[in-house]
Amino acid sequence: MLNVAIVGPGLVGKELLHQLNSHATHAAKVNSQVVQLPVVGIINSRRMLLGPVTPDGKRAPLPSLGAWADQLQGESNASTAASLSAFVDELVATHQPTVVVDCTSSLEVAQQYPAWLAKGLHVVTPNKKGFSSEWSLYEAITKHSRLGNASDPTAPWVYHESTVGAGLPVLNSLYDLVKTGDEIVKIEGIFSGTLSYLFNEFSSPTAGASATKSFSDIVTVAKSLGYTEPDPRDDLNGMDVARKVTILARVAGLKVSLDDLAVENIVPEALRSAPSPDAFMQQLPDFDAHFSDLNDQAQHSKTVLRYVGVVDPKGQSSVKLMKYPVDHPFANLKGSDNIIAFTTKYFPNPLIIQGAGAGAAVTAFGIFSDIIKVAERV
Amino acid sequence: MLNVAIVGPGLVGKELLHQLNSHATHAAKVNSQVVQLPVVGIINSRRMLLGPVTPDGKRAPLPSLGAWADQLQGESNASTAASLSAFVDELVATHQPTVVVDCTSSLEVAQQYPAWLAKGLHVVTPNKKGFSSEWSLYEAITKHSRLGNASDPTAPWVYHESTVGAGLPVLNSLYDLVKTGDEIVKIEGIFSGTLSYLFNEFSSPTAGASATKSFSDIVTVAKSLGYTEPDPRDDLNGMDVARKVTILARVAGLKVSLDDLAVENIVPEALRSAPSPDAFMQQLPDFDAHFSDLNDQAQHSKTVLRYVGVVDPKGQSSVKLMKYPVDHPFANLKGSDNIIAFTTKYFPNPLIIQGAGAGAAVTAFGIFSDIIKVAERV
Repeated sequence: MLNVAIVGPGLVGKELLHQLNSHATHAAKVNSQVVQLPVVGIINSRRMLLGPVTPDGKRAPLPSLGAWADQLQGESNASTAASLSAFVDELVATHQPTVVVDCTSSLEVAQQYPAWLAKGLHVVTPNKKGFSSEWSLYEAITKHSRLGNASDPTAPWVYHESTVGAGLPVLNSLYDLVKTGDEIVKIEGIFSGTLSYLFNEFSSPTAGASATKSFSDIVTVAKSLGYTEPDPRDDLNGMDVARKVTILARVAGLKVSLDDLAVENIVPEALRSAPSPDAFMQQLPDFDAHFSDLNDQAQHSKTVLRYVGVVDPKGQSSVKLMKYPVDHPFANLKGSDNIIAFTTKYFPNPLIIQGAGAGAAVTAFGIFSDIIKVAERV
Repeated sequence: MLNVAIVGPGLVGKELLHQLNSHATHAAKVNSQVVQLPVVGIINSRRMLLGPVTPDGKRAPLPSLGAWADQLQGESNASTAASLSAFVDELVATHQPTVVVDCTSSLEVAQQYPAWLAKGLHVVTPNKKGFSSEWSLYEAITKHSRLGNASDPTAPWVYHESTVGAGLPVLNSLYDLVKTGDEIVKIEGIFSGTLSYLFNEFSSPTAGASATKSFSDIVTVAKSLGYTEPDPRDDLNGMDVARKVTILARVAGLKVSLDDLAVENIVPEALRSAPSPDAFMQQLPDFDAHFSDLNDQAQHSKTVLRYVGVVDPKGQSSVKLMKYPVDHPFANLKGSDNIIAFTTKYFPNPLIIQGAGAGAAVTAFGIFSDIIKVAERV
């Protein structure tokens, strides 16, 4: 039995609560095959909910998980004003195995992990900040958890599958390779659903150059579909991919930080200082020829353009626009799928994983799988 | 700390012992990050080795793991005559967490799993027999392990990643999908390295029909490279793939047995009773036109031939020769790689995993990862 507490029930957290709630119903029916995962607490930036403490000193699940959203409203008697430190202290007080699931993307929250771990709480999160910001934070998370204390049965668990490729089994596969002593030769992948979509549309292995839409048109469509950040430059500057490359590199055993990576920002230099997203979008068509030239060159050599992240243990890890032959797995990607290729001593012909790498359902699935992994280990 | 005992140190078992031995050296150096996995016993069909019992009643690791092969020779004083039941009783006697790793492909050994599990031993294996033979055996393995008793902390663990796709994260991904309540819509894949190689060579998305080698030539080359079974009909009859489809279907929650599958045996009818592998190989060229016709038809519709296994929860699961468009991930497979696509509620655009699905190094890696998963849970 593992208690679950959720920090930040936004889009992903809501979906996770929905999946957990369905699971609880499912577990009640077939509990021989499904672990029990009582949700005992939920906190957002304003309010928090905690299950009652029973007479034997255990924290009971939230009485009506389906109603948490209403109960987190300020007017509800069920919730109280949010205090993350009080929330955590309450969780620790009952001495039960408990996992804190950080569904925020906040650095401030991630900076609390070492303290939570030191108190014996397990951590599961899709939040990239703790694993891709300053090295000292990553080191502290490692030092206070099983990540850095494999043989210490009292050290709490940390899982963060959904920080790279959402629910795709990327990090758990990499951890398996590392733990068994495999040697990582190269990790290469398309880690941004947005940039996957843009270049799958722009640089197709079947369409000739003439059939290609302009780059700015594709960005406009992607923005209107909600595939990009509100300011598409936050996708095109490569920083989101760079965080994922940093995480992969660190899990692979490299002491790398964001600043160590060579990151190719594909926002045209002149547009980086455009005062607003709208101004950026208005001026982007002026650079269509630049992107079309790159694409024509690629097509001329029977390759396509893909924006990739690369972990190179013996060289410099990087984020860049690359060309791939038309029969390469990266060339035949569809929609906004992610893809990752691990080249190792065991897998000289790479181990490849591909599929949806963004979206609430698959991100929540990755978190949920991680929670079950903790539950199976406590 | 988890004791490890190996049954059947053949090609895969030897590689596993090599990986475990390197790991032990590695663990001695950096033991904060690597779990300790002492090998306490090895048994083959003739002899067995067991580590000594220490004064405090614990079983010590084998004193010189590097010398196990010599010590298993009949002349060595270190080993004794093999008795699998005595071996298991010795492991149970010390009441330490212990995993038995079955590296045989024997049904008789697999039939012992329920008894081992009932005694509290964990099981890790690449042996398909226990999971794809009669339903009653599969049910007994489930019933006596955590597979069927998710909430019982005393139930032992069973992991069998390497029964499908060797070390590729196929089954662990499927277990994650099932445990989180995802709905499996379809599982489809190329699960035989041999049949992958044969059809990747025979039916290429780039080569025109005229450039294609004859099917019998490709089988001859594959046989000479050791890619096929000694009798290639054991690959071409689809039974190995059918066992893997049975395993996937059962993990997905279906009560399916080998006999329930529609299996397309691509050995020409007239050759099934050929008296020897040599006789089969001699007569195979008579059927080249048959295979070429199929390939021409495929190429005509811009598709390629691939021999696949399909788990269909709402229809009939099957093993058959199928056609795929030239830009489909199955069409662009290389060498003898496996590939598997999970279409689910969470992944309507499938989650795809590909890479080497056979070979000692990757099979041993899959087993080793499973052993670590048990070690992390005890």
